[in-house]
Amino acid sequence: MNPRFARLRPEMDIDEAIAYLRRQAGQVETIYYAYVLDTDQRLLGIVSLRDLLSARRNQHVHQVMRRRFQNVLENERQEAVAKLMTDHRLLAIPVLDPSGVMCGIVTIDDAMLAAREGASREVQKIGGTEALDTPYLDTTVRTMLRKRAGWLSVLFLGEMLTATAMGCFEKEIARAVVLALFIPLIISSGGNSGSQATTLIIRAMALGEVRPRQWWRVLLRELLSGIGLGAILCSLGIARILIWHGASGAYGEQFARIALVIGASVIGVVMFGTIIGAMLPLILRAFKFDPASASAPAVATIVDVSGLVIYFSIAKMLLLGVAG
Amino acid sequence: MNPRFARLRPEMDIDEAIAYLRRQAGQVETIYYAYVLDTDQRLLGIVSLRDLLSARRNQHVHQVMRRRFQNVLENERQEAVAKLMTDHRLLAIPVLDPSGVMCGIVTIDDAMLAAREGASREVQKIGGTEALDTPYLDTTVRTMLRKRAGWLSVLFLGEMLTATAMGCFEKEIARAVVLALFIPLIISSGGNSGSQATTLIIRAMALGEVRPRQWWRVLLRELLSGIGLGAILCSLGIARILIWHGASGAYGEQFARIALVIGASVIGVVMFGTIIGAMLPLILRAFKFDPASASAPAVATIVDVSGLVIYFSIAKMLLLGVAG
Repeated sequence: MNPRFARLRPEMDIDEAIAYLRRQAGQVETIYYAYVLDTDQRLLGIVSLRDLLSARRNQHVHQVMRRRFQNVLENERQEAVAKLMTDHRLLAIPVLDPSGVMCGIVTIDDAMLAAREGASREVQKIGGTEALDTPYLDTTVRTMLRKRAGWLSVLFLGEMLTATAMGCFEKEIARAVVLALFIPLIISSGGNSGSQATTLIIRAMALGEVRPRQWWRVLLRELLSGIGLGAILCSLGIARILIWHGASGAYGEQFARIALVIGASVIGVVMFGTIIGAMLPLILRAFKFDPASASAPAVATIVDVSGLVIYFSIAKMLLLGVAG
Repeated sequence: MNPRFARLRPEMDIDEAIAYLRRQAGQVETIYYAYVLDTDQRLLGIVSLRDLLSARRNQHVHQVMRRRFQNVLENERQEAVAKLMTDHRLLAIPVLDPSGVMCGIVTIDDAMLAAREGASREVQKIGGTEALDTPYLDTTVRTMLRKRAGWLSVLFLGEMLTATAMGCFEKEIARAVVLALFIPLIISSGGNSGSQATTLIIRAMALGEVRPRQWWRVLLRELLSGIGLGAILCSLGIARILIWHGASGAYGEQFARIALVIGASVIGVVMFGTIIGAMLPLILRAFKFDPASASAPAVATIVDVSGLVIYFSIAKMLLLGVAG
């Protein structure tokens, strides 16, 4: 925020106002918007230099000023300010205190810089790093390690639950080693669809396109998307197994059941991944955390653990229940 | 680009110029910058309305205009234009043809909108979706499916290589089922560290902080980061196995060798993931593709396949070579 803004009085005439702005030109942040204040420093209206220059000379400032204007409060989030300015094509926006007294202005160049830095922080968080806040090549390797190791360790500890989960299915794997072959394929399908959903929602929330109270609309859309995407990947997975088996007999007599297990698991895991990925940023926001902390790797980790449980439960039901 | 910009002649005096701008105010995109052209429409200099208003009345336009100015060519990328304007705090930038003839201007509000849309496309691509180009809730489920299914299917087909790779190690898994338990942990460590590296580099390239010819600096930094991050996760992994084994004897007599295999694999996979994640966007740019196509899921998929090969090769060497 900049406190050096151009002030006008409502009763000034146009020529007087222009002459006054000319004199202020060296001292203020911008002369392209002037702020019309009452004697208590409350903002009455805004007049652009362009409005003044195209007004008739016999008019007064209060006749040409805009009484309906966008403004922000002092503690407003930077990205929200930038969004408001872009949406209303403003070169500057006034900052008011709660009683309407003018504190300063935010100019578009500052807002644009803030928007750029905000986008960087968002992208870096989605990638699973703490925001760097300095250019990549200017960040020391030491700082880089610190910003990356934290999340990576948390994710690693979370991912250890996969070993625990799989420990519960060790007997099943020993009985049908073929199940192990598809573990990465199954869990990554969930991670990838979750990663898509979470980035779409994080971005939509950053732009204010999706608000937390719209969670049920998001849920419905992602449920439909999850079913659709799951069905597509399911067909690809089944086709792969049938073709492979046809060519080399790789999966033995049980090949049809294996195809069924893989197909059903892919649908389940993709649907689960899509829904978790979409809901996690909304849940984080509801608890006042940054939605972008629902990074692609974090969603993938949650989905990996639950994906394994889905996969082995289906396998136990469809394959091993019969085989045993 | 907007062709409606304010023009001035170099020989005009200041009052004449201001009066002329006042008359043009309704017809041009902005009157806050005026463009001084010669008779062949070539751009000689730029004068801001602020410069005009703070100039002495007896001066002429050619005395106050800025002869050194930023400009862009017609086919310049939108994000590059936005970056140039932010860095130089410009409200408008002239678009010239190669001979210096003025074609139009880009104003900051258009640039800011372009920057926002560019950031959205970048974030969505990093998440593994084609750019939506419409707000999330306004995109039909059908379009959403189309934009997401493409990449998801490609990644799924790529990830099928994991089943193929693991097929080569089926005997090893049958001999030591315990190896299967750590598959998700190992490959996700690579995916997560790759995802961090790729988003950091994509963002740094979008901001022009990293250029393709600096690839060796990136490689060196990521090699160091990879070793550091790998060492941290390696210690966590080994600690987990030793503690678990101490508590429940879960890993039998071979527990020390298993810990060694996991530790060595984590270092190898994290280093590999970090380097692939960082280099892929640079390689894509070198071949004129969008670096943001090196999405977190794409990097994870590449690292999954190679991570399995690293893991089982180390296991074969350190564990099974002795056990067999």
